[in-house]
Amino acid sequence: MFRILETKEHILADNAAAAEQTREQMKKDGVVLVNLMGSPGAGKTSVLLRLIGLLGKDYRIGVMEADVDSDVDAKTIAATGARVIQLHTAGLCHMDADMTRRGLDALGLDGLDLVFLENIGNLVCPAEFEIGADLRMMLLSVPEGDDKPLKYPLMFTVSDVLLFNKIDTLPIFDFDAAKAAERARALNPEIRIFSVSAKTGDGFEPVAALLREAMEQRRTQA
Amino acid sequence: MFRILETKEHILADNAAAAEQTREQMKKDGVVLVNLMGSPGAGKTSVLLRLIGLLGKDYRIGVMEADVDSDVDAKTIAATGARVIQLHTAGLCHMDADMTRRGLDALGLDGLDLVFLENIGNLVCPAEFEIGADLRMMLLSVPEGDDKPLKYPLMFTVSDVLLFNKIDTLPIFDFDAAKAAERARALNPEIRIFSVSAKTGDGFEPVAALLREAMEQRRTQA
Repeated sequence: MFRILETKEHILADNAAAAEQTREQMKKDGVVLVNLMGSPGAGKTSVLLRLIGLLGKDYRIGVMEADVDSDVDAKTIAATGARVIQLHTAGLCHMDADMTRRGLDALGLDGLDLVFLENIGNLVCPAEFEIGADLRMMLLSVPEGDDKPLKYPLMFTVSDVLLFNKIDTLPIFDFDAAKAAERARALNPEIRIFSVSAKTGDGFEPVAALLREAMEQRRTQA
Repeated sequence: MFRILETKEHILADNAAAAEQTREQMKKDGVVLVNLMGSPGAGKTSVLLRLIGLLGKDYRIGVMEADVDSDVDAKTIAATGARVIQLHTAGLCHMDADMTRRGLDALGLDGLDLVFLENIGNLVCPAEFEIGADLRMMLLSVPEGDDKPLKYPLMFTVSDVLLFNKIDTLPIFDFDAAKAAERARALNPEIRIFSVSAKTGDGFEPVAALLREAMEQRRTQA
């Protein structure tokens, strides 16, 4: 159904060089790479299911599920028909560029338009490692609170896209979306913010449109 | 109101030795040290407010708020009258034993019965670093999902106490508390599990009782 790759061992010391190599590879192969990040339980896998649902008919999608352990998310994604590989970091709190490159090799880019890396659930470490992605997409779920940009600033600073997930739960949590957006934009004025609910499916069309645009642009470059 | 200490620089290479030093210090000074861990937004600060509410009349409590950045949590805790210090890890994803020791020195243990370290919000890195705590207490909040022991096993393996927080939201999330408990106990048969809601205050009395017991025991040792 899917392979499991142990990615802990570092081969290249230079993370930036490996990231650049991936960036070139993606352009050459006409594939868009998205680095999906967020806290444990922010809803990364559920968001992927929604995006695969909207994009899977027109585009061929691959997913790399990075986890410290287990393969529950890879199983969930594999059921959609997307090409999936499970990456095990064996205790590491993030994916780096070399681990990502080896994941991409094992996944195989042939025939794919879009690859998601679902990074380790963590608001600190993944923000520090460029992997060569075209888009860095982060989730902040409503139950986590609107103060997270203050506490984990780097993640908001390096992300291109921010999804507020679980917006169906806004009535029961003290989450001020305007305040969260303002705090994120204070760190990163260019960040594009969308409100979604992976549970209800609300709000995903503009996110899918952004990914479609990235893929069409890549096709004309390739 | 409270100091801010930059704790990034490591002085001692040997984490285990520093942890042991702290353990001895706590015994000598008659203080119980709790390492409070959990994902970003799991409710660590809100849980502290509830426990301080239950214990603050009879015991003197200190709190070390560790964050990558910001001091919002320290401000919240300082309002309770507890002794507080803000620790900044300057990007680091966890507190280690030496950083903790320096935090304790800066906080000052004189007159205290109980010290909480609110660790960085993260289910990976803090589990790897012994700090010399008497109790490792972790939170898993209902919105994060019952599969977290499968994905972040070490945190559940090294914790003495597990609080399921935000149980007031059980009706709206797919969280099977029995399954989560079973998965945690498969990793750590000795783990003590409690269900709480920092929002409503439900469930905290047995947790406070456990801390009272630890403090009384320490008093007879000191």
